[in-house]
Order: sequence, then structure tokens, then C-alpha cells
Amino acid sequence: MREFKTDIEIARAAQKKPIQEIGAKLGIPAEQLVPYGHDKAKVSAEFIRSLGDRPDGKLILVTAINPTPAGEGKTTTTVGLVDGLNRIGKNAMVCIREPSLGPCFGVKGGAAGGGYAQVVPMEDINLHFTGDFHAITSAHNLLSALIDNHIHWGNEQGIDSRRVSWRRVLDMNDRALRDIVCSLGGPANGYPRESGFDITVASEVMAILCLAADLADLERRLGDIIIGYRRDKSPVFARDIKADGAMTVLLKDAMQPNLVQTLENNPAFVHGGPFANIAHGCNSVIATKTALKLADYVVTEAGFGADLGAEKFFDIKCRKAGLNPAAAVIVATVRALKMNGGVSKEDLGVENVEALTRGCANLGRHIANVRRFGVPVVVAINHFTSDTDAEVAAVKDYAAGEGVDAIICRHWADGGAGIEELARRVADLAASGQAAFKPLYPDTMPLMEKIEAVASKIYHAAEVTADKAVRDQLAQWEAQGYGHLPVCMAKTQYSFSTDPTLRGAPEGHVVHVREVRLSAGAGFVVAITGEIMTMPGLPRSPAAERISLNEQGYIEGLF
Amino acid sequence: MREFKTDIEIARAAQKKPIQEIGAKLGIPAEQLVPYGHDKAKVSAEFIRSLGDRPDGKLILVTAINPTPAGEGKTTTTVGLVDGLNRIGKNAMVCIREPSLGPCFGVKGGAAGGGYAQVVPMEDINLHFTGDFHAITSAHNLLSALIDNHIHWGNEQGIDSRRVSWRRVLDMNDRALRDIVCSLGGPANGYPRESGFDITVASEVMAILCLAADLADLERRLGDIIIGYRRDKSPVFARDIKADGAMTVLLKDAMQPNLVQTLENNPAFVHGGPFANIAHGCNSVIATKTALKLADYVVTEAGFGADLGAEKFFDIKCRKAGLNPAAAVIVATVRALKMNGGVSKEDLGVENVEALTRGCANLGRHIANVRRFGVPVVVAINHFTSDTDAEVAAVKDYAAGEGVDAIICRHWADGGAGIEELARRVADLAASGQAAFKPLYPDTMPLMEKIEAVASKIYHAAEVTADKAVRDQLAQWEAQGYGHLPVCMAKTQYSFSTDPTLRGAPEGHVVHVREVRLSAGAGFVVAITGEIMTMPGLPRSPAAERISLNEQGYIEGLF
Repeated sequence: MREFKTDIEIARAAQKKPIQEIGAKLGIPAEQLVPYGHDKAKVSAEFIRSLGDRPDGKLILVTAINPTPAGEGKTTTTVGLVDGLNRIGKNAMVCIREPSLGPCFGVKGGAAGGGYAQVVPMEDINLHFTGDFHAITSAHNLLSALIDNHIHWGNEQGIDSRRVSWRRVLDMNDRALRDIVCSLGGPANGYPRESGFDITVASEVMAILCLAADLADLERRLGDIIIGYRRDKSPVFARDIKADGAMTVLLKDAMQPNLVQTLENNPAFVHGGPFANIAHGCNSVIATKTALKLADYVVTEAGFGADLGAEKFFDIKCRKAGLNPAAAVIVATVRALKMNGGVSKEDLGVENVEALTRGCANLGRHIANVRRFGVPVVVAINHFTSDTDAEVAAVKDYAAGEGVDAIICRHWADGGAGIEELARRVADLAASGQAAFKPLYPDTMPLMEKIEAVASKIYHAAEVTADKAVRDQLAQWEAQGYGHLPVCMAKTQYSFSTDPTLRGAPEGHVVHVREVRLSAGAGFVVAITGEIMTMPGLPRSPAAERISLNEQGYIEGLF
Repeated sequence: MREFKTDIEIARAAQKKPIQEIGAKLGIPAEQLVPYGHDKAKVSAEFIRSLGDRPDGKLILVTAINPTPAGEGKTTTTVGLVDGLNRIGKNAMVCIREPSLGPCFGVKGGAAGGGYAQVVPMEDINLHFTGDFHAITSAHNLLSALIDNHIHWGNEQGIDSRRVSWRRVLDMNDRALRDIVCSLGGPANGYPRESGFDITVASEVMAILCLAADLADLERRLGDIIIGYRRDKSPVFARDIKADGAMTVLLKDAMQPNLVQTLENNPAFVHGGPFANIAHGCNSVIATKTALKLADYVVTEAGFGADLGAEKFFDIKCRKAGLNPAAAVIVATVRALKMNGGVSKEDLGVENVEALTRGCANLGRHIANVRRFGVPVVVAINHFTSDTDAEVAAVKDYAAGEGVDAIICRHWADGGAGIEELARRVADLAASGQAAFKPLYPDTMPLMEKIEAVASKIYHAAEVTADKAVRDQLAQWEAQGYGHLPVCMAKTQYSFSTDPTLRGAPEGHVVHVREVRLSAGAGFVVAITGEIMTMPGLPRSPAAERISLNEQGYIEGLF
């Protein structure tokens, strides 16, 4: 019987190669890698520019069904699939998001894959990594400081201090900062007003960095940020208080993709990490586009299930960056399918083919949704030891009925060797020429109709409701020239509906748009359908209490 | 006539060597350097441990007279002196502080030396560098979040939420955050209370990192931080809410010294940057001690003039770390001596030997003060083009009368070649065996007497006054076992007195201690004698408005 090892033990035992060797696999000369230690590097802007018009590799999206709270293993499958593709002789690389620092101190856990399908060095990736999120925090908060400073020194732009919409950020779970009153203490400290902090991944600067094509585009988008409004309701932009240049300077290194490696020494870009609710939840465009010039297969993922993650990947990232995905993998687990079939969390380990088959309706809808974007699909069954043969067979049968292969994957336990069958199928699909990507709606469609298109076609809702204030706001933005933007849906990840307990494939539900927000720099309109928490808190017994360095200098308690 | 170049132009034209070559000069193998790009690296903890009991080189302090607002060029002289020492065949290295990010966006200017005496890459050093300050910000704010989280979830330790003394930090000049009310918005966000932010360099975590001997000592000191008080006034420590382990994890890389190079390719550690008022204002102990094992001459500096910087360097850093400085350089400029002699800022460019001679009383007192610590002195006249021969001669004559050489130094214009005479004199002094370092007061002296010792012996004050509340507080700390700590004076840098306009060498003035603070983790008691600003603001027209990347990708407007 095999010895059980934790993720961190596996990661520590990794036989990492020097990052220059990993870069060489991609044809990146050592002098064009900016090293951060011996196992991490940024790719130089000069090298990226030099890639010019090279042909692109195939882009593969890994997405998932509606998950259990533990997640379905999208990152693990993304990493494993690249190892599998390389094992069958393909030149493939990973493109995933950077994890956020703050949540590591709340609940134990990292975000660099798991088991034998991880990117390393996982401790660094989960902590400060190459400093990208710190740079984003600095750039965001510089803008915040410049806003209050502008008001303090005479307010030439006439900013209505009651209508400053730009908050501050920290990469920390800190509920005490959600709502504050700042500028107290007398005239030297400015005009008191209400404000607050979000977590750094929720910053519009994060979304902008992930969508910007290059530094010039980054600067333009930063300038486009709306920081608040004047008394006449006209928007004030970051450009109006001359913040865009300095913010760009703070972000110039953060814009460069970070190269690391999988446990099997295959290349991985880990870059950018926008929230998957109020932002689009995908790694950076610059990393993905660079990867497509360097590898024949680029495997990437998008946050949450396919109803949120894949839809935003297609309608925001692919649309805006001109990407053409060649295939999609939908990750399912027997456990999550049973949960979608009505099984309670406690009973997920018990065989229940009937509930599983019921839950497959959830999978079926995700398959149909992804195909609607013109992208061919394969299902990856991320194997758990508790899965029974009958359950696995039922998933395969269901998928076959939809005309899709469902392939059992054992990358968590076996690394690339456990996922070769999926790798072959993905390579075939990508080569089949079946893909004909098209977004769900045209740019020209009015904003409310875009929301309705997503709700009806992807969520199968009967109706979208919204107060007059929300509809008026959308109309105003259209009048101001923002009507061409895509919409970024903020909805629970646990259901197609806005009710997290409504599993499976609900029909005819109502999607209520509570609030809309304009991310003018990132370039989308956020439609909020429930409570969205942009600053998490720590639990009663935070992981931080158990985290420390042991005598060997290793980190304990973090993962 | 020579072309005038700005600091940034000179820095960009630097012929940098790969950082591995700089490390090799010090005997550091490439695999023991953790690179950050091609021109910065951290020295591994393993390598530092391997140095064991190697003999130490000579430690040279660069300090200054009471300055003009533009500063006297301590960093420039520190860097230049190392280049000069290397030019005359000595094996010397620089040990200086890291600059703070926030102030760069306020008033134009960096802190990596100037002219032909700089450390490079100066843009990186002035911006994110190797992320040390970001790590300190994270560790500090994790503790803050854990405090409010502890209170929120039941407050097992019984922290009095009115008496939480631990604030939050950002490396940003942001006056709006000086005084805030946090935890507003309802029960889910905690108990509303008053708080605020300081700039990161003012964090006690910064002072701790700079005084810690190693990671174990760091963790112990972090645990010793007092975060607030219970209703019975007993202190609550960071250890009590189990924050010390996770904070240490966040700081493990930041603890390693950063290696860069001078324009003349000599090695420099740039590490740590505690405030020179509420903290001790010196680079890290670990960098200084490591440097002493690697070089024959280690040149370091301390913040502000010698009355503050040198006194704290001797009484806090050297005392606690067991360092024995071999010589001190007091930097003076003709301009600052004239200002100390009563000349107004506008007239500093005009020859005025009489005022200059009057102002030399300031230099004379600093000479006597440094000698009182048992450290031999030489004066460096940091040359400005407006200095006249008569003025320079007057400074030399004055110093000669005090039994000290005053040597004209042209490192700003000529690099190491301009400072060889000083280098030779420093090498002679350090070899002379004259040094017999002793701190000003013994550990056993009561805290108030320590403050009085500094005020009378260093400042030449007639009296120290303090309210009963301050005296009671000191007595209470003595009863709690903190009486052995040194004192950290927070006073204006422009005068020996607490009145910044009182130039020269005032006598018989009164030092009023307004407030005392205990930095139990760092290990000192701060005595505050005036208004201390721990969160700066931005000016009416901040440098940020003019900072941008130009078309070549170079930073404009920052320096």
C-alpha cells in the first residue's frame, strides 16, 4: 500500500530544475528571464515583444460543473493535463492564476494544484511569490491617497467627497476594514468621509493588469478608472488627477508573466488573479498570449463552475483579447455530481448511482453551454478513492448520451501518467478543427439584454428583474458610451440560479440584479445578483494561529 | 567643461556586473545567492550560518552634523567611502538602509546615494526592491487583523478594545488614514473603535527585523510585541493571540540581507529601514554582522545628525548587537555649517567665513559627542561647487583645533577617486587601535536617568521635564521588567535642542518629554520630545503626477 503524503510534503520532495532550464524548453534565453530565486522568473518585456507574429498554439480551457465547497480540482486537472500532454510527446504549458495571500491565514490551504499535480515552489507561490499582488496593492492605494490628497488641497476637479467610489485594498482577510470613516483628527488629515478596504484580488487594478495587452494599454486602462463623481454626477477618472503614470511605474514588473514548473518539470505561467465574482477570474491575457507563442498546447482555467468561469472566459477574456479556444475540459467529480443530485455533504462517500445520475443534469447543461460558444468538450472525471466502478460507469454513460467522452483521471495520485488518456483526447479534439469560437452576444447589444442573454441561455432563468435605479444606471452608462462593454456576472458559484442550495439543472428561476457597477478601466459592467463579499474575514480559529517555521526552516500549518 | 548629469542618468549608464560576480568578491558562492533579477540578490540563511566564528572586519560609522533640509550626504559619503577604500586596495563594503516607497510619490527624490556615489539598480532599490517592506506591511497587518478577529470571536484574552495600541501600516503617504474609525457596518464587521495607519517604516516590525539576530530571535521579538491592554491594564502580547509564528513565516525572506553594488562595482548590503525618530534608524543587524564576516571594512550610516543617529546607533544597535565600531566619519557641508552659523537658506551660496566659523560649534559638539563613546573621528567635507577655498580652509582649521582631520571629499563629482584621502585616513584611524567603544549609560540605569543622560551629555540640555503621567508610565514599565532597555529619543533632527530653529550648539535648554512608548519587541523605550509624524502626507503637487514610463521603458519624474 502506498504511503500517503500531503501536498506540501510532495512539493518539498520535488526534483525542481533551475528555472533557466525550464525557460530553455520554451526557447527563452537565460538573459531574457528575470530570476526571482532559482525556481521562479519573470519573462522580460523585450522577449515578449520579440515574439511578434509567431503562430499560436492551441488554447485549452479547463472548467468545471457546479462544485462542492472543496472545489472539483480545476487547477489540479489543469496542471495534470499539461504533464499528461508532455508525456505523450506534446509541447504543452500551464497558464493559471496567482493565489491570494490573505486567505492563507484564514482556512488552511493553498492554490497551486494538489497531490502529484502541482506547480512549485508552492510555498513561495502561495506567499509573496514575485510581489505582483504587493505591486497591485501599492498602485491601488497610491490612487486612493492621491484622491484624498486632491480633495485636501483644494479639489480642483470638484470631486464630490460623498461620491468617491474608489476604496483601498490590502491582501489580508480583515473584516474591521470593510467599512471605515477616514480623514478624522482635524484639518491636517483631510475631510472625514466613509470608505473601506477590499481584498487586493478584488481591485479593479488586478482586473486591468489581467486584461491589458501591454504597458501602454495598461496605462490607458488605469487612466480610464472612474474614481468617483462630481456634484453634477459626471465621472472623475484616474487620469484627471494624473495618477495613471505613477501607477504604471509601480506595475511595470508585475505586468511580466511568472514562469515556474510542474512537479514533472513542465513550464507554467502563474500570473494575475482577479476575483471570479466582481471580476472575470482568469489569469492574465499577456501570460496566455505569450504562452500561445511558446507552446503548442496552452492549458488554462477560469474561476468557479462553467456557468460563471467559462462564460466570463469566453465573453470577456477571449472576446477582448481575440483568443480562439480549441477545446474545453469540464471537470466533474462523482462527489459533486451526487451533491447536485441531492445527496448531503455527510453522505457523499456512499455509493448512490441514482442520485449521481440525477446530478448529471448539471454536467449536461454545462456541456451544452460550452458547446454553445462553439468549443468542443471532453469531461474529466477527477478520481477520488471513494468513487465506485458503477458510479464512474454511470457518468461515462451519461456523457456518451450527450455525445461527449468522460475520461477517468488519476493525476492527483499518479501525476501525468494518470491523465494520458485525457491528454490524447484533448489533443485529438484540438486538432479536429471542430472549434469555431463565438461569444454569446454581440458588443452592440444593450447592457440589460446582455445580462438577459446570459441568464436565459446559460442559467436557463425565466426572467431577469431589476429596480428602476439599476435600469436607469445602465441606460446612463450606455449614453456615456459604455454600452459596448461585456457584462461580468457576480452570482453564487454553487447553482445555475442565484440560490446556492438549488442544485442540479434548475429551470424557470428568476435572476434579480441587485446592483450594477462600472469597471471602466477593466472594461466591463458588473451585474451583482446576491451578497458579494469583497473583503473576507478570518474564522474563529484562523490558520495563522498554527502557522510557523519549524527547526528545518520549513513552513508548518500553511497547507 | 563637464556635462551635468542627473543621478538617474548616471545610474542608468552604470556598467553593472552580474550580482554573482559581486557576491564572488565577498566569497559568496552563486548557489548561496538568491537572485532577484540579474543585479540584486539575497544572501541565503544557510550561508550566513556557515560564517560561524570568522573574525570581524572594521566597522565604520558615517554620521553628520545637524543638517539643512536637503541633508548632508551621509549615504553618498558612505557609498563614496567604500569606493575610495577599494581604490586604495582595501576590501570594503557598504551597509545601508532600504528607502521607503511612499515618500517617492510625494517629493521627487530617491535614497540610494547621489552623483557618482550611488548604489544600483537605484530605480529598483527605490521602488519594490526585493519586497522586504511589502513583507513587513503584510506581517504587521496580519497581526492587526488577528487582533480585531480575536475580539470579534469572543475576546478570550479580554483585550480592552479602547486600549488596542497596535495600528495598521501602509508604505504610502496617506494622511486620510492617520485617524480612522474601523469595524463599522454592523455586527459582522466587529466592534467599532478608533485606530489608524502609520507608514511601514514606522512599524515596530521594521525595528524588530532590523535588530533580530536570526529567525528564532525574530520570532521571539515578534511574540514580545505589546498589542494593547486588558481592563486591568496588563499588557497583551502578540504571542497571546498566537500571531508570532505566521508573522515569522511572512518575514523569512525579508530577514535575508540584500546584495547590490556601487557604481564602481563594489558590494553593498541594502537592508532594513527603521524610522530614525520612533525607532533607531540603522540598517539591519544581520546585514551588518554578515558584512563584518565578509569584508575588512564595513561602512554604515545612521539616520539624521549624530545627536540622534549616532547616539542610537551606539546605544541601541551596537549595545544590543555587541558591535565595536572602529571609527566614525562626521559629514559636514559648508552650507550646513553656515546655516548653523545663522545664515538663511537663500544666502547659503554666498561666501561667509564668519558665519561658517560660528556654525562650526555644531560640528565641534558632534566631534566631542562621538568621542565620548570611545570612537575616533574624522570629518568629511562633502564638497559643493559653491564652496570657496577660504570656507574650506576655515573648516579644516576649526577641526584641527579639535585635534581632528577635516578632509575635502569630491565623491559626488568624481566617485571613489574623489575620496581617496578620506579613505586612507579612515583606514589609518581604524587600524590605530584608538577605538574603545562604550555606550553612554549602563543597562541598569533607571529609564528617566537614561533620558537625562542623553539630554545632558549629548544635547547639553539643562533639564528634562515630563508630566507625572510620563514618569509613572516609566516606573510601571520598570516594575514590569523593562527597566533594562535603552531609550530611543524622538527629537527634531535640526537642532541639539527640541526647537528646530535653534542652530549651532545651544546650551542650557529644556527637553520636555511629551510621551513615552514601549517597543517591547524591538527592545527600547521611545521618548517623544515633539510632534512626531508617523504617517506623512502628500504635498499639493505630488511627484506622482509627473511620474511615468517613457517610450524606452525608463522611469521619468521619480528622481
